[in-house]
Amino acid sequence: MVTPSAVKSRLRTQQIETPSWAYGNSGTRFKVFAQPGVPRTPEEKIDDAAQVHAVTGIAPSVALHIPWDRVDDYAALAKYAEAAGVRLGTINSNVFQDDDYKLGSVTNPDPRIRRKALAHLLECVDIMDETGSRDLKLWFSDGTNYPGQDDIRARQDRLAEALAAVYERIGAHQRMVLEYKLFEPAFYTMDVPDWGTSYAHCVRLGEKATVCVDTGHHAHGTNIEFIVAFLLREGKLGAFDFNSRFYADDDLMAGAADPFGLFRIMYEVVRGGGFEPESGVAFMLDQCHNIEAKIPAIIRSVLNVQEATAKALLVDRDELAKAQDSGDVLGANEVLMDAYHTDVRPLLAELRAEQGLDPDPLGAYRRSGYGERIVAERVGGEQAGWGA
Amino acid sequence: MVTPSAVKSRLRTQQIETPSWAYGNSGTRFKVFAQPGVPRTPEEKIDDAAQVHAVTGIAPSVALHIPWDRVDDYAALAKYAEAAGVRLGTINSNVFQDDDYKLGSVTNPDPRIRRKALAHLLECVDIMDETGSRDLKLWFSDGTNYPGQDDIRARQDRLAEALAAVYERIGAHQRMVLEYKLFEPAFYTMDVPDWGTSYAHCVRLGEKATVCVDTGHHAHGTNIEFIVAFLLREGKLGAFDFNSRFYADDDLMAGAADPFGLFRIMYEVVRGGGFEPESGVAFMLDQCHNIEAKIPAIIRSVLNVQEATAKALLVDRDELAKAQDSGDVLGANEVLMDAYHTDVRPLLAELRAEQGLDPDPLGAYRRSGYGERIVAERVGGEQAGWGA
Amino acid sequence: MVTPSAVKSRLRTQQIETPSWAYGNSGTRFKVFAQPGVPRTPEEKIDDAAQVHAVTGIAPSVALHIPWDRVDDYAALAKYAEAAGVRLGTINSNVFQDDDYKLGSVTNPDPRIRRKALAHLLECVDIMDETGSRDLKLWFSDGTNYPGQDDIRARQDRLAEALAAVYERIGAHQRMVLEYKLFEPAFYTMDVPDWGTSYAHCVRLGEKATVCVDTGHHAHGTNIEFIVAFLLREGKLGAFDFNSRFYADDDLMAGAADPFGLFRIMYEVVRGGGFEPESGVAFMLDQCHNIEAKIPAIIRSVLNVQEATAKALLVDRDELAKAQDSGDVLGANEVLMDAYHTDVRPLLAELRAEQGLDPDPLGAYRRSGYGERIVAERVGGEQAGWGA
Amino acid sequence: MVTPSAVKSRLRTQQIETPSWAYGNSGTRFKVFAQPGVPRTPEEKIDDAAQVHAVTGIAPSVALHIPWDRVDDYAALAKYAEAAGVRLGTINSNVFQDDDYKLGSVTNPDPRIRRKALAHLLECVDIMDETGSRDLKLWFSDGTNYPGQDDIRARQDRLAEALAAVYERIGAHQRMVLEYKLFEPAFYTMDVPDWGTSYAHCVRLGEKATVCVDTGHHAHGTNIEFIVAFLLREGKLGAFDFNSRFYADDDLMAGAADPFGLFRIMYEVVRGGGFEPESGVAFMLDQCHNIEAKIPAIIRSVLNVQEATAKALLVDRDELAKAQDSGDVLGANEVLMDAYHTDVRPLLAELRAEQGLDPDPLGAYRRSGYGERIVAERVGGEQAGWGA
Repeated sequence: MVTPSAVKSRLRTQQIETPSWAYGNSGTRFKVFAQPGVPRTPEEKIDDAAQVHAVTGIAPSVALHIPWDRVDDYAALAKYAEAAGVRLGTINSNVFQDDDYKLGSVTNPDPRIRRKALAHLLECVDIMDETGSRDLKLWFSDGTNYPGQDDIRARQDRLAEALAAVYERIGAHQRMVLEYKLFEPAFYTMDVPDWGTSYAHCVRLGEKATVCVDTGHHAHGTNIEFIVAFLLREGKLGAFDFNSRFYADDDLMAGAADPFGLFRIMYEVVRGGGFEPESGVAFMLDQCHNIEAKIPAIIRSVLNVQEATAKALLVDRDELAKAQDSGDVLGANEVLMDAYHTDVRPLLAELRAEQGLDPDPLGAYRRSGYGERIVAERVGGEQAGWGA
Repeated sequence: MVTPSAVKSRLRTQQIETPSWAYGNSGTRFKVFAQPGVPRTPEEKIDDAAQVHAVTGIAPSVALHIPWDRVDDYAALAKYAEAAGVRLGTINSNVFQDDDYKLGSVTNPDPRIRRKALAHLLECVDIMDETGSRDLKLWFSDGTNYPGQDDIRARQDRLAEALAAVYERIGAHQRMVLEYKLFEPAFYTMDVPDWGTSYAHCVRLGEKATVCVDTGHHAHGTNIEFIVAFLLREGKLGAFDFNSRFYADDDLMAGAADPFGLFRIMYEVVRGGGFEPESGVAFMLDQCHNIEAKIPAIIRSVLNVQEATAKALLVDRDELAKAQDSGDVLGANEVLMDAYHTDVRPLLAELRAEQGLDPDPLGAYRRSGYGERIVAERVGGEQAGWGA
Repeated sequence: MVTPSAVKSRLRTQQIETPSWAYGNSGTRFKVFAQPGVPRTPEEKIDDAAQVHAVTGIAPSVALHIPWDRVDDYAALAKYAEAAGVRLGTINSNVFQDDDYKLGSVTNPDPRIRRKALAHLLECVDIMDETGSRDLKLWFSDGTNYPGQDDIRARQDRLAEALAAVYERIGAHQRMVLEYKLFEPAFYTMDVPDWGTSYAHCVRLGEKATVCVDTGHHAHGTNIEFIVAFLLREGKLGAFDFNSRFYADDDLMAGAADPFGLFRIMYEVVRGGGFEPESGVAFMLDQCHNIEAKIPAIIRSVLNVQEATAKALLVDRDELAKAQDSGDVLGANEVLMDAYHTDVRPLLAELRAEQGLDPDPLGAYRRSGYGERIVAERVGGEQAGWGA
Repeated sequence: MVTPSAVKSRLRTQQIETPSWAYGNSGTRFKVFAQPGVPRTPEEKIDDAAQVHAVTGIAPSVALHIPWDRVDDYAALAKYAEAAGVRLGTINSNVFQDDDYKLGSVTNPDPRIRRKALAHLLECVDIMDETGSRDLKLWFSDGTNYPGQDDIRARQDRLAEALAAVYERIGAHQRMVLEYKLFEPAFYTMDVPDWGTSYAHCVRLGEKATVCVDTGHHAHGTNIEFIVAFLLREGKLGAFDFNSRFYADDDLMAGAADPFGLFRIMYEVVRGGGFEPESGVAFMLDQCHNIEAKIPAIIRSVLNVQEATAKALLVDRDELAKAQDSGDVLGANEVLMDAYHTDVRPLLAELRAEQGLDPDPLGAYRRSGYGERIVAERVGGEQAGWGA
């Protein structure tokens, strides 16, 4: 029997990192619809992230993206964040937007470009040293569009070489998390297309290298919670990039397209020990709010993850184990579904009240007037966006 | 028994339209890699299209995209094309790049925006009158990203209303072809997601409305040639947008990802009468050459379609029917595959020689020096691209 | 504002038909795991169906499958059902298990086999006359496994001919519902692979022909609720076969794999008028309980549909319309999700109590001892199954 | 420049194993259409396999399936095979058809059933000792159908334990190859759903454990040749189960659904050294001939693999590397496609003539009268099939 207070107690430890770039403009290849009030500087992104934390209480850090968030003084930026009530989190590298990277970055057939890409990755570690970040997130857009375009295996060799060089460089208390993605922007092969590829590289690298699971980066039909359970068993689950999708890497708000899937994932996280702070699993959002207001969308996403977590924590694991062990298919399924069908919103409202937060984070944000304020104030300058 | 000369004779009638926008820059949401020599004006796009026709002999027309190809004087543009050796073809509307269209164009909940979108579509018919184009291609990016975002049925009502208004406007010898797409840029519902939706609207509209099949716009597992055969049987196949894909709407070169699929499609085209000029089926490319040289890529695509067609024409339909009628599963499959496995390149080289063309179109293009010339000459100005 | 009593009042009209074959053995191509207590006769299947209705109150009819449920006297069977507290529902034809149907039934190249298949379909109408059934459900396993195996278009001609003959035969108050399926058992083409194909045939046939949506018969990524909304708008949605899946046509318990999807479907049903009794939409289950106890699994499935319906009815459509009309993406989504996140189990327990039912149907079934009784009594004889 | 004689010389070393069960009856869950002449004993299966080898010259071994091919004296069976001109190959275990395995075999929550399953696996190794087989192929149907049904991680623990016990038992010159499968017969989780899972277990087990790639066991969109290249690089590619599919695990004839995909796979095999006999990669068919004549279908499949291999060997790897290294996307693709478009049938006919074989294996088989003979002679007895 799981008590509400036990669930609340564990929920108090939850932390979800929001990404600086989600506060900026984003879109599809067809069109980026700019939104008024979008931040123009890393500081303004931090301001927005701080709002999300202020109303949810569980989004205390913000991930940076280099070069989009490049500043002269990262220590000053860290202090800025602290003053705003948040801290700097994961450093995300970007080796996909320079013209040189048309045919790949660290896997490019041209050694000059590989060196350039590696230098960027190492620069990111330098930045981590300054920001005090623990994690370097590596996502490579590298791949090919046409059969024969490049040698699949040679690209793995080049990838392994770059990863080893970065691994060598990171400090004892730092980690690298290697993301995988089925496709896009490459349309024939991606150089890290699936968890198996990421896992195999991470195993060779060592214990500071772990896998990052982006929930939108799989083929249809992939059972993501199985991957989560498997990686936790192997000690190789490093981080999540949460978002949701109906089709491809839609980057919709976490939980919006598949709330049941998110619950199943969070159940396996809890089951496998990934919710224990010492597990080191990082929970991040990685989304695009192309048509909806960005800050409320991020609040909504944080709440969706929190709700899924609350439901996962509500699962009566003793009852579940009993049903599972006795081969009671329907009974075991009922135990899990009972938690899922529970409306956890009252419990979360209670938790927030206990924490001195408004029980209704979205309402609190709307009432704060922050949204109107940034629209009025952020005039001129260049809005942040994927290409900024 | 199919004779090579019969195949060649039918191949002489083949026409594949190339799209003006494929000569400009394109990319993914992550990055557009600009290429040197890319055209800056509709005229330069026509010049490039004329090169493709010059070496292949089967790409005599070029599709325009409004407003990307907006000019003051379409009659003059038509003359320009004629002088270059090609003609203007299908007019493609664009109701997805104005800021107003964030939540839809003709299906937008806001009637003002619907009127604006409709006005654009009607403008496209005006342009057709000037260019002498037969076909108006309608592709709507309209849809929603989140469950509940808008009313699915109300959007169909609005769509039907706009289509009826356009249909009313087009002339007796004009047609509208309605494209469908599973997803992107909308990620929950598209307002015309599949052939059934397009078909149902076209049936209500009348015989000047037909379906456009874009080969990259289907769910995995969809049997495209079945759709082709079905629409031909119903007299509702209007046009093809050829391209190929491994994952989503990758927009790779036609035939590059699935040459066998392209062959099967072309076989059903031939079988269903869609290759007869009087069928009115339009064969167009709609592709993005993000990392490869554009003009050679388009030549390659045209050749891929031509090769698939040659193989389709080589199928011994008498033998096939015999095997099919007798329930000889393996025998029937063998007849089809025999044509597919045939190397038709010598036959096509022969055909070209007979037509006074270089037997090797890609070689001819490379030797022409055109590629180097445009790189040298097209300096300054704004390169054409999806947002241009 | 939707009141609980309004929701309950509408839920009282709900009727879900269970299929006789789901009470028998089923499995995969790898193995059928027989279960003790499985019915051996149509009467025993009806007994089981009556149990489901007894505890849920919303499963008053049972669909038959011919020849699996062939009896000498259908009027007697109808009386048997009545005495058991249920009635006979839809008649399902079976033209896929005779050796003759290896290469198809009504689309077979061999006219003798086509005649045989048609005769079976007409026999099903005879049975409908005797049972008083309204609906003839047509699902064809017909298709091909290999490119070239048969002529896609000729098969459509044969299909159209058979459908017309059946349509001709059904009475003024009878209907035919035409099911579609992406694949399995045919692996290259199915002759009715998608809703568009079924729709086009039904439109030509007339108003007594409508489409049956089996929720497991689509490609990954297909938005089923869009199809539902579209068919309701066209007046062509005839019936549902509910089940759920993670991969292909898994035939799991409805709502088990995708409870959110089931909710979205039921929302569109309600929105489009399909929940009004006069709409004529039939709600059926079509599932396989390969490893779980069958009767409880069917009760669970009925409850899952009921819960999804209750949530769909809870949607505040006035608020939703307001948000949709004003382009409030997040607000509109919130309205829908608010209903989905509501735990409707207390409301349903209340409804049952008001109806004189046990508030806990599964508990009531378990306490009834019926499950143990049939295991003890149904010894010997041949258990019903797909091949029975 | 690749010479035809070099290609032929390498093709002479090719060996493709055919599976005993493909000669027996198979079907879908809807129906097994029995075929006349199907073997009734392991010896008759071997006779059929010998026919395939006799006409193709490259199918010298036949895989057994235990218990379907259980005999009292395996040494005698091996001699029988030798006399027929073939040899016994891989031993396939079967822990999915006993009633006990409803909820799993080696991953079953019930330890008694796990022990039983393990005992069967060890029995298979005993049989290998008698037959002289090198490889034990492990495919587990184990998994779950419903969320919560069993503990994903506990099942991995049980799997690991069983695998370790088997690994311990196999001899120095024996291997185990672990197959993975996305879904079917389990519909929520498979316990070995993807190559990553199989790989991770094999790495832990040691070098005698390698991965088996069944070409039909992936999610749509999966790039199989990438997996092949990756596993070869890791030294962990043990075997192929060839077949083809349009949808799920359709088990169609290899190369029938995706000849280009098969070519790309074979190219990576060649590229990665997997075609060298010392690589130890086993090439097997694993197919179901549900509606087509079985022996000709297997001959066709063997030929399809051979043709794809010939094309892969024809790729001019020097030219390819040159284009790849210089970033010539189109040029590199052209080199690969040039080989694919080549009609290799004349070259293979020549090779066969040089080997004293009929240049037309299917014709030779048809002319042999073997098909008619087995229909006439194999009367009575129980036909082999999946359940036999």
